[in-house]
Amino acid sequence: MQRVKTAVIGASGYSGIELLKILLRHPGAELVALTSRQNAGQTLEAVFPRFRGAGPEARLKFIEPDMDAVAASGAEVAFLALPHGVASAFAMGLLARGLRVIDLSADFRLDDAAVYEEFYEHPHPAPELLREAVYGLPEVHGAAIVGARLIASPGCYPTSVLLPLIPLLRAGLIDPASICIFSMSGVSGAGRKEALPLLFCECNESLRPYSVPKHRHLSEMEQELSRAAGQPVVISFTPHLVPVTAGMLSTIYVAPAAGQGMADLDAVYAEAYGAEPFVRCLGRQGMPDSRQVVGTNFIDIGWAWDGRTARYVLMSAIDNLWKGAASQAVQSFNLLNKFTAATGLQSL
Amino acid sequence: MQRVKTAVIGASGYSGIELLKILLRHPGAELVALTSRQNAGQTLEAVFPRFRGAGPEARLKFIEPDMDAVAASGAEVAFLALPHGVASAFAMGLLARGLRVIDLSADFRLDDAAVYEEFYEHPHPAPELLREAVYGLPEVHGAAIVGARLIASPGCYPTSVLLPLIPLLRAGLIDPASICIFSMSGVSGAGRKEALPLLFCECNESLRPYSVPKHRHLSEMEQELSRAAGQPVVISFTPHLVPVTAGMLSTIYVAPAAGQGMADLDAVYAEAYGAEPFVRCLGRQGMPDSRQVVGTNFIDIGWAWDGRTARYVLMSAIDNLWKGAASQAVQSFNLLNKFTAATGLQSL
Amino acid sequence: MQRVKTAVIGASGYSGIELLKILLRHPGAELVALTSRQNAGQTLEAVFPRFRGAGPEARLKFIEPDMDAVAASGAEVAFLALPHGVASAFAMGLLARGLRVIDLSADFRLDDAAVYEEFYEHPHPAPELLREAVYGLPEVHGAAIVGARLIASPGCYPTSVLLPLIPLLRAGLIDPASICIFSMSGVSGAGRKEALPLLFCECNESLRPYSVPKHRHLSEMEQELSRAAGQPVVISFTPHLVPVTAGMLSTIYVAPAAGQGMADLDAVYAEAYGAEPFVRCLGRQGMPDSRQVVGTNFIDIGWAWDGRTARYVLMSAIDNLWKGAASQAVQSFNLLNKFTAATGLQSL
Amino acid sequence: MQRVKTAVIGASGYSGIELLKILLRHPGAELVALTSRQNAGQTLEAVFPRFRGAGPEARLKFIEPDMDAVAASGAEVAFLALPHGVASAFAMGLLARGLRVIDLSADFRLDDAAVYEEFYEHPHPAPELLREAVYGLPEVHGAAIVGARLIASPGCYPTSVLLPLIPLLRAGLIDPASICIFSMSGVSGAGRKEALPLLFCECNESLRPYSVPKHRHLSEMEQELSRAAGQPVVISFTPHLVPVTAGMLSTIYVAPAAGQGMADLDAVYAEAYGAEPFVRCLGRQGMPDSRQVVGTNFIDIGWAWDGRTARYVLMSAIDNLWKGAASQAVQSFNLLNKFTAATGLQSL
Repeated sequence: MQRVKTAVIGASGYSGIELLKILLRHPGAELVALTSRQNAGQTLEAVFPRFRGAGPEARLKFIEPDMDAVAASGAEVAFLALPHGVASAFAMGLLARGLRVIDLSADFRLDDAAVYEEFYEHPHPAPELLREAVYGLPEVHGAAIVGARLIASPGCYPTSVLLPLIPLLRAGLIDPASICIFSMSGVSGAGRKEALPLLFCECNESLRPYSVPKHRHLSEMEQELSRAAGQPVVISFTPHLVPVTAGMLSTIYVAPAAGQGMADLDAVYAEAYGAEPFVRCLGRQGMPDSRQVVGTNFIDIGWAWDGRTARYVLMSAIDNLWKGAASQAVQSFNLLNKFTAATGLQSL
Repeated sequence: MQRVKTAVIGASGYSGIELLKILLRHPGAELVALTSRQNAGQTLEAVFPRFRGAGPEARLKFIEPDMDAVAASGAEVAFLALPHGVASAFAMGLLARGLRVIDLSADFRLDDAAVYEEFYEHPHPAPELLREAVYGLPEVHGAAIVGARLIASPGCYPTSVLLPLIPLLRAGLIDPASICIFSMSGVSGAGRKEALPLLFCECNESLRPYSVPKHRHLSEMEQELSRAAGQPVVISFTPHLVPVTAGMLSTIYVAPAAGQGMADLDAVYAEAYGAEPFVRCLGRQGMPDSRQVVGTNFIDIGWAWDGRTARYVLMSAIDNLWKGAASQAVQSFNLLNKFTAATGLQSL
Repeated sequence: MQRVKTAVIGASGYSGIELLKILLRHPGAELVALTSRQNAGQTLEAVFPRFRGAGPEARLKFIEPDMDAVAASGAEVAFLALPHGVASAFAMGLLARGLRVIDLSADFRLDDAAVYEEFYEHPHPAPELLREAVYGLPEVHGAAIVGARLIASPGCYPTSVLLPLIPLLRAGLIDPASICIFSMSGVSGAGRKEALPLLFCECNESLRPYSVPKHRHLSEMEQELSRAAGQPVVISFTPHLVPVTAGMLSTIYVAPAAGQGMADLDAVYAEAYGAEPFVRCLGRQGMPDSRQVVGTNFIDIGWAWDGRTARYVLMSAIDNLWKGAASQAVQSFNLLNKFTAATGLQSL
Repeated sequence: MQRVKTAVIGASGYSGIELLKILLRHPGAELVALTSRQNAGQTLEAVFPRFRGAGPEARLKFIEPDMDAVAASGAEVAFLALPHGVASAFAMGLLARGLRVIDLSADFRLDDAAVYEEFYEHPHPAPELLREAVYGLPEVHGAAIVGARLIASPGCYPTSVLLPLIPLLRAGLIDPASICIFSMSGVSGAGRKEALPLLFCECNESLRPYSVPKHRHLSEMEQELSRAAGQPVVISFTPHLVPVTAGMLSTIYVAPAAGQGMADLDAVYAEAYGAEPFVRCLGRQGMPDSRQVVGTNFIDIGWAWDGRTARYVLMSAIDNLWKGAASQAVQSFNLLNKFTAATGLQSL
C-alpha cells in the first residue's frame, strides 16, 4: 500500500492522542510531521509514555507549528487537532501550500458565517473557506469527501445524533419540530485542560447537564438536519457529563410525520447504512451500550416505538474520541486516499 | 424526644442499608425488630461491617420475617424494604396487627389494580388496600401522610420527575402531552443482586438505556401527573444506567400550555416549595449535579427556557437511595410521628 | 451542650469541606468565622452548593484571613485547613491572640526543625513552637491533647500506618527494621488543585506509585514509630494513587522481634484500643475494605500471620479525608473541650 | 503469512474475550473452532456484541466442547481459556489428538504436583504432563516455548512480579529472603462471574486486600524465583482489588545481597530485556502507570533505591488481561509458530 505522507498539527489533547494511536498503525499513513508549540524538540514517546516502544514513528520529534516546515516535510495531508478558532489559520496556510486538510475542530463545520458567529461569539476568521469545506460525515457526505481539499470533521454529539436521524428525515418519516435529544458524554470530551470541574474528585460520582439550552454543537446538528429535511429544523438538545473516560450515548424522542404511524425503521436503516462498515443497526428494541463501541469507529443504533405516546425512541452509542473525533477523521482520510473504508480502523 | 418503636422488614438491599444508617442515628426511632430470612440469628453489624461500632442497636439480631414476632417486639411502625410483590403480604399482616406501615416497594403506589397488573404483569395481591394507601411524596401529599396507616413511598425516578413537574401542571403552565423525560441512575438502583449486567466490569465505562419504552415507574409517574393536571397524562420516559454508585439526574423537556410563553418558574417553585426543607430550587440556569445531593434527602431543581424551541428544560438531581428511597421514607415517618421534618435527616 | 466558638481558616480544599460538613452538625461547635482570601464576602453555601439548605451557619460569610478579625469573632478554637508552610504564621498569630489551634497541615507535626527542613526543603518558620505542639493522634496522645494549645493533626498516611504499628512496637513484639509499608490513597488526598495529573481522564483506570522512595509523610511516621519503639526507626513506604475519591488502605509487612514467633495480636490490639470508639479491630484474617469506613472516623485494622515467611501482614483502612484529616481533627477538638469522643462524629 | 488454524476452548470469561479480540485481527491466526457449552450454536457476534461487524470470523459459531469436533476443525493450536481444574482434561485430549496447547489456566504452571495440591487443594489431574509443560513467560523461557507441545501461560500477578525480579536474582544482586510484594489488580482479574463482591456497587470506591497470606499465584512465583535464584525462595505477597476494569501494578521491596549496595539496575535490565519488544524499562525513578499499558502486551518496569533503608523499590505495570493473560499467550503462539514477536500485538 502506498503510504500517504501525513502531518498532525497540535496533537496534545485527548482526540489528538487517539488520532496518533490510529495513524501510527495505519498501513496507508506515514507520519512525517508533528507540531506542538509546547513539546517542540521532544519525541512523541517522550511526551506520551503510551507510545514508548511503538516503533520508529514514535521517535518522531515534535516541531514548532510552522507551516513552511510542515510543507517541507513533504506532507500531503494534514490533520488539525487544535482548539476551535485556532485551526482556521493553519487550514488556510496549509491549503495554500498545497496540502489537503482534515480539521477536527469546529472551524469549518458551518456553511454560514453568521451562524458561526452566533454560536461561537466571534466573527469567522476565514468565511471564504466555509463554502468549500465538506462536512466530514462519511456515511452522509462520502462522495463529497473523496474530492475535498478541506474536510471539517464533525463534532462528537452531532455524529451521535445525525446518523440516527438523517435517514428518517430524508424519508419524510418524522416531524422535525418534535426532535428532543439527550446526550451523555465521557469526560475526555471536555478536553485535556487544567480546570477544576474536570478533576477526578469533581467528576467521579457526578452526573450533570451543561451548556443548557444552547450548546455550540447545536449549530452543526441543525444545519445537517435541515439539509436532510429540506426545511429549517430547530431542536432541543441537552448534553450531560458522566464519569466515564470515553463513550457517548444519545437518546432521541421524535414523533412520526403528520398522519403517520410507526414505520419499519429497520428497513430504513438497512437501506441507508447496509453498505456502511461502521454503522451497526441493533434493530427494534436493540439497546446500545457505549462500552461496546469504545475504542472503535462503530456507531451502534437501536430504536423503539412507544405506542403510548406515539413517539419513536432512537438511541445511539459511539466513542466520543473515535467515531466522534479521531477515527472518523481517519475514515475521511481513507475516503480521500481511496483506501478501503476499514483501513487502519479494524479495532475491536 | 419520645422514640417510636420501629421495625425494618427485609433490609438486605441497598435501600435497606441506607434506611438502617438513617434510623440508627434518628433520635425519634428505636429499632426493635429487624427481619431477614437469610440473616436471621446474626447481628446487624455481623452482616454489614459498615455498622460495626455504631452502638447497641447495631448489635440487634435479625429475626425470621414472622409477623407475630415483629408485633411482639412492640413495633409501632414498620418499614418494608422488600422486593415488589413480596411486600404486600407483610403490609396486610402488619396492618392487621395494628402497626403502621411505610412500604418502600412498588406494591401500593398505584390507585388502580388494573394499571398495576398492566405494568407489573400479575394481579395485585391486595387490591382492597390500594384505596387506603397514601402515595408518600411528602411535598405533595404531606397532609395525607400524617394520618395514614399505609404509606407507599415513591420510586426514585418518580421522585426526581414529579417534584419538578407537579407545580407546573397544577398551575396549568405546561402542555402535558409534550413531556419528554430522560433519566440517569446510579447502579445501586438496580439492586444488590448477583447478576452479570451489574458486575463492576460490565457497568464501569458503560452508558446504557434500558426498559425502553415502558419502564414500570411510568405507571406511578403518570398517575401523579394526571392527578396534578386534572386530566390523563401520558409521557415519554427513558432510564439510563451510568457508572456511579448513587445519584440520579432527570432532564425534562416540556412546552408551555397552548398560547403561553415562558412563565416565571422561580416564582412557581418558590410558592410550591418555599417552605419545604428538602427542595432546593437552583433557579433559572441553575444546573443540578448529583454529587451535591448524594447522601442527603435534598432534591435540587434547576430550569432553563429554550426560546429557540419554545420549550422548558427542567433538571433535577437526587440520591436514588436517599430522597429516592430510604430518606424519603423517613421523611414520611417524621410526618407520621409529628417530628420536625429534618429530624434524623440533617446530613450534608 | 455549651457550644464552643470555632473558626475555620482556609477551608477551600477537600479536607476543609469535610471539616465544615462535620462542624456544621456538631452540637458542641458554633462556627463564628470562616476565612478564605479567594471567597471573602461570599456565603459558605454560595461557594459550596453542597451546603445549601444546611441551616443558618451555611449562610455565614467568608472573611479575609485577618487574624484580628478572627479573634474579634470570639473564636476560642481555630482549625487551620491550609497548605503546609502557610499554616504556621496563622498558628503563631492566633495563639498570640489567645485561641487554641488545631492545625491540619504538616507544619507542626515534627519535633525536630532539622527533620522538617530535610523533608520539606525549607527552614521551619516557627521552630520554637515545635516543642509545644502535640501530635494529634488521639488514640496515642489523648492525654496530651486535652491540655494542648497547639495540636498538629496527623497526615492521612501516618494515621493509617501508626495505629496498627504502635501497639506492637510498644510491646516489643516486632523488629522495627523490618517494616515495609504499601499504601493506596484516593485522589482527594492529592488536593483540590488544577493539575493535569489529577484530571478525571488521567486518574480513572490508572494505578500509580508516586513520591518514591521518600514521601514527606515518612518523617512523621518515623518520629512516632521511633517514640513508640524507644529507638530510631527507619521504614520503607510507598504511596499509590488509585481511582477512588476517598479512602486509604495500608498493608504492612513486619517480622517479629528477634527470637519471637507469632504473638496474639488480637489481645494486643484489644488492650491498646479496647476503649477507643474509633478503632475497629477485625481480628486475625479480618480484611479491611475502605468502602466500610468512608465518611466515618473509623479505622479498621486486620492482620494475618504468614508462617511461610514468618512475617505479620497488618492491614488498615481509613477515609483519608475523615480519620486521615477532618474528623480526626474534630476528635481532638472533642478531647480539648472534654466532649464525649463521638460527639458530632456518629456517622455511619 | 501462512495462517495457523486455531481453536479457542471456553472463551466466555474476560481473558477469553480479549484473546478473541487479538486473534480476530492476528494475521497469522485463522480461527476454526470456538467451544462453549453454554453458547453452543450461537455466533461469536451474537454472544458478544463487541464483535458485531468484525468480519467473517465473528460469525463463527460456538460448538460444544467436544474434542473430536475440535480436532476435526483442523485446528493445529488450541488456546484453553477455562477455569483451573477444568483445563487439564482438555489439554490431555487435544495433545492426544495432535494439537499443540496454550493453556491460560493454572493447571500446568507448576512442576511439582505436591505443590499444586498444597495450593489448589486437590490432587493434580494429570501429573505426568507437568514435566513436559513449559512455563510460558516468553522473556524467560522463550527458547523452550518454541518447541513446546504444552505451554502453561503465566498468571497475571506472577507476570508482573517475575519480570522485574528474575534478572536481579540471576545476577545474584538481591537477597531472596527479603522480597516483599504488594500488588493491585483490576476487577476483571476476579473473573466474569455472578458474585456479590464483584458487583459495581461493591467494588466502586472500594480498596481491599484479599487471599492473605497465601494466594495461589504464590506457588508459581516461588517456583520461578527459585529457579532464577538457584535456591528455594519464599516471599511475602499481598494482592489487592481496586476499582479499575483492567490494569495491575506491583511494588516490590528487596534488599541487596549480603554485603552489596545499590547496583546499576538500568544496566541489568538493559542486558536482560534490551532485545525484548514488550518490556519497557523506565529506568531509575521511572514510575509505571497501569493506564499506559492497558490494552497492550507491554510491561513497564521502574525502580528506585532507598538509601535510608538500603532497599530497592521495584515497580511494574501490566494489563492483567493482556500481558497478564491473553496477549502473553499470543506472544507464546508467535514464538511457537516462528512469527515475529509483535505479530498481531501492535496495539497502543
